[in-house]
Amino acid sequence: MKSEHTETPVTVLGLGRMGSALAGALLAAGHPTTVWNRTPGKADALVARGALRADTVADAVTASDLLVVCVLDHAAVTALLQPVAGQLAGRTLVNLTSGSPEQARETAAWAAGHGIAYLDGGIMTTPEGVGLPTSMILYSGSPEALAAHRGTLAVLGDPIDLGADAGLASLYDAGLLGLMWSVFGGWLHATALVGADGVAAGTFTPVALRWLTTVGGFLDRYAGQIDAGHYPGDDATIDVQLAAVEHLLHAGRERGVDGRLPEFHRELMAKAVAEGNGGDSYARLVDAFRRP
Amino acid sequence: MKSEHTETPVTVLGLGRMGSALAGALLAAGHPTTVWNRTPGKADALVARGALRADTVADAVTASDLLVVCVLDHAAVTALLQPVAGQLAGRTLVNLTSGSPEQARETAAWAAGHGIAYLDGGIMTTPEGVGLPTSMILYSGSPEALAAHRGTLAVLGDPIDLGADAGLASLYDAGLLGLMWSVFGGWLHATALVGADGVAAGTFTPVALRWLTTVGGFLDRYAGQIDAGHYPGDDATIDVQLAAVEHLLHAGRERGVDGRLPEFHRELMAKAVAEGNGGDSYARLVDAFRRP
Ligand SMILES: NC(=O)c1ccc[n+]([C@@H]2O[C@H](COP(=O)([O-])OP(=O)(O)OC[C@H]3O[C@@H](n4cnc5c(N)ncnc54)[C@H](OP(=O)(O)O)[C@@H]3O)[C@@H](O)[C@H]2O)c1
Ligand SMILES: NC(=O)c1ccc[n+]([C@@H]2O[C@H](COP(=O)([O-])OP(=O)(O)OC[C@H]3O[C@@H](n4cnc5c(N)ncnc54)[C@H](OP(=O)(O)O)[C@@H]3O)[C@@H](O)[C@H]2O)c1
Repeated sequence: MKSEHTETPVTVLGLGRMGSALAGALLAAGHPTTVWNRTPGKADALVARGALRADTVADAVTASDLLVVCVLDHAAVTALLQPVAGQLAGRTLVNLTSGSPEQARETAAWAAGHGIAYLDGGIMTTPEGVGLPTSMILYSGSPEALAAHRGTLAVLGDPIDLGADAGLASLYDAGLLGLMWSVFGGWLHATALVGADGVAAGTFTPVALRWLTTVGGFLDRYAGQIDAGHYPGDDATIDVQLAAVEHLLHAGRERGVDGRLPEFHRELMAKAVAEGNGGDSYARLVDAFRRP
Repeated sequence: MKSEHTETPVTVLGLGRMGSALAGALLAAGHPTTVWNRTPGKADALVARGALRADTVADAVTASDLLVVCVLDHAAVTALLQPVAGQLAGRTLVNLTSGSPEQARETAAWAAGHGIAYLDGGIMTTPEGVGLPTSMILYSGSPEALAAHRGTLAVLGDPIDLGADAGLASLYDAGLLGLMWSVFGGWLHATALVGADGVAAGTFTPVALRWLTTVGGFLDRYAGQIDAGHYPGDDATIDVQLAAVEHLLHAGRERGVDGRLPEFHRELMAKAVAEGNGGDSYARLVDAFRRP
């Protein structure tokens, strides 16, 4: 018995860990899914689940009007797609390969020059999070392409629309990963600190997670301050935080924990205090990160 | 008409921004509340709301069996309380002044020597968050004191029991503040980055807050890895993250954004890769923070 497909056909180019997860989510949602990978064997498991194998990139491109590419990097995208620009014309290309905003804008300009509707994306989850409605996938580029394919793209994760500048998905992606590494760093430092006194990471982390929710509330308030360019220190001033960071440095030294991260924070705070801004909120420190 | 009090009487010593919030929450919950502050005028607003004014520290101490102290720092606590050790004997002292774990243990030992039940605490919120059930207040020290006064202390925020070692509330507090500064730093960096391309902090931050929830899920998994001493990189390896951090550094350089924070993260990752651990998860980097 043949199944009747009413879902949009999609082609996925690149079947690494992430591309395979994307193709798997599309298959699971009933989309006729054509797949291609440089090393063909990586398509086997998906073909066994009903995917259509394309033997060449050109076959893969002409199989669907909607194309998703997820390969290693920008150079791989360029090497893969420039030879098939003619076949891509008139279709929609969704590039979920990580890269810089400048690379995304370059690909968008190339796509525009060949009549290809282009969306750049940033997948804010791991392969196992693909398909969950809690997982964000950032999009920037052609508003028409996003409007036309939003339902299909929602199969991969919650689509977040960042607007027409194709570079923004990569820019947000980079910034959010930076935030993630900062969270990881602060949490690893704290875990090492309490671990030195015998506290297990699994004991400390639920408290840290609750605390992250509280800290998230501060960010909401500070965002408004940054946009207003006005940093009232009515909750907690930089002065007060500079006093508190000494306890962290002291506790870390006593325990032989690496102090570079709190020292960096102290340096930022001390500079703001020296500049006469100690009575402001922490949001004032955005100046320390901006182009001088 | 006299009100009949069935709630436990409490004394609050120190009426700065935080002490005033603590006393205010106790008053609002119907506790007979005695207050004292070095600069007496700071008690006026609380007295107008029904607090009892103590003229001396000794009067304040003898007014209640449960005492909360929240002054500037450890030195202030010591200066304030050592002269009244005799009157404190047999009572419960809850010290919500920030300090190092070593200072907390010192105060606990002093209290034990004078027959004072001692709880050390860390207030994980600002004065305006005092009294909210979402606000955590960390406690460590006498388990009997916490058991006896948990209901009263819950008026100030959700009491989190860290056990009998009086130093742990301060140790967690320091670690959690370090996590907060790391979150602030990562978020400020990202805000400066997207801001350079015209994105308002208020536009970026809701996406960042959703992302923090995703990142929190990673911490849960990584905590188990740290306790097991085993760091399988099945979601995302350090190798992959080291490639991604280059996009962040590149995007930051293009925009003149301060790169010290991502450079620190890159350095940690590159060291782990050089040591042959690039296939592990990010949790492996806890080694970089621990005593060598
Ligand atoms: N994994 C994650 O958690 C995650 C999260 C967000 C974003 N991403 C991004 O998703 C993209 C793919 O990541 P992944 O985890 O799937 O990596 P991966 O498992 O290493 O797969 C890399 C893929 O790129 C292909 N490839 C590399 N160079 C190529 C070239 N010159 N021409 C054609 N194909 C080429 C590989 O083909 P072969 O099989 O032939 O080698 C493979 O399909 C990356 O940009 C990554 O940053 C990943
Ligand atoms: N504010 C927050 O968001 C926050 C959050 C968590 C923890 N904390 C901690 O709570 C404690 C108090 O902070 P705060 O915000 O209330 O600070 P604050 O507004 O500056 O008040 C400081 C208090 O300490 C008193 N004090 C200072 N030195 C003293 C001494 N030698 N003897 C007696 N009293 C002395 C001051 O009395 P005078 O009025 O006479 O100067 C005042 O009551 C600190 O340890 C702080 O780290 C604060």
